[in-house]
Amino acid sequence: MRKLKVFSFVSLDGCYADRSGSMTWAHDYSRDEEFTAFATENARGSQGELLFGRVTYDMMASYWPTEMAKTNSPVTAEAMNRMKKHVLSRSPRGLTWNNSHLLRGEIIDAVRGLKQQPGPDMMIFGSGSIVKQIATHNLIDEYQLIVVPLVLGGGHNMFEGIQQNLAVRLNHHRVFSNGVVLLSYAAQV
Amino acid sequence: MRKLKVFSFVSLDGCYADRSGSMTWAHDYSRDEEFTAFATENARGSQGELLFGRVTYDMMASYWPTEMAKTNSPVTAEAMNRMKKHVLSRSPRGLTWNNSHLLRGEIIDAVRGLKQQPGPDMMIFGSGSIVKQIATHNLIDEYQLIVVPLVLGGGHNMFEGIQQNLAVRLNHHRVFSNGVVLLSYAAQV
Repeated sequence: MRKLKVFSFVSLDGCYADRSGSMTWAHDYSRDEEFTAFATENARGSQGELLFGRVTYDMMASYWPTEMAKTNSPVTAEAMNRMKKHVLSRSPRGLTWNNSHLLRGEIIDAVRGLKQQPGPDMMIFGSGSIVKQIATHNLIDEYQLIVVPLVLGGGHNMFEGIQQNLAVRLNHHRVFSNGVVLLSYAAQV
Repeated sequence: MRKLKVFSFVSLDGCYADRSGSMTWAHDYSRDEEFTAFATENARGSQGELLFGRVTYDMMASYWPTEMAKTNSPVTAEAMNRMKKHVLSRSPRGLTWNNSHLLRGEIIDAVRGLKQQPGPDMMIFGSGSIVKQIATHNLIDEYQLIVVPLVLGGGHNMFEGIQQNLAVRLNHHRVFSNGVVLLSYAAQV
């Protein structure tokens, strides 16, 4: 079965989005030269596929196809626009971003079905609402959390409401010069 | 002015205590040999003072003076029982643990007054309710967070309700063999 990984910025108090749902607080930290090189290298030639909830999809679809994105982050923009995007949404409208595919049905079955199809590994970018719905169903193989040295005081937590403790295993870490820390955890099965 | 540091276990989703207020979920991780050596070395001969909220004080006062604590963790128990303990509490009753001192008055003024007194640096152990009340008042100099590879799905967050973003600076990190990660941050003043 192909793997599903989560890649998300999180504030020091554990939020992937602030109270208003915005992720712009992470921008200052992702503009760091060393971090940009890391993210660019990840994106370059990536053959993976992406899994989005509707809110994050709309946010990204309004940015990555723009000339501004192509100028600011050409390698990442090329990858984001090219890669296959699966979108969990109750509404089929407006999936106008290149290579976007609506994922129908109940979320657990839909994601399990997707994983059972042949294909490359998949990544969830920041769609915390998906994570909290599927994390305890053995569907996520890895959590790559980019811990930002900023406290928000509240916001959206991708694990909020999970009803059982979820033990994971640290398999990689990296500290960037701007104080951002990548902590990568494998699910324990 | 002497320094005030926070030392706390936090779950991967940012909680210092679970929904019921318990911190026992961290015990399995703190029993690791390498981590125990680190904690013991910190405690050995420590001249610091401790600052507690009432709930954490009562929890620790019921454990560290016991024979079980002295047997399981002799060095840490000696330090915890010996060190000066300041307790923020509305009730003066029951500060029976050795070297405990009631801290009277409004919390911000009380902590500021304590910092202005001559003396060694002070540490807050796990009293997240204090942290959230004073974090934005320039009273905390350092956050030492022990990130445990366990998701709780909810609980008490020491930064919850802080009304402004709080940027901090990573000044130290250490990864332990059991996957626990120490992330130490200095306040940005």
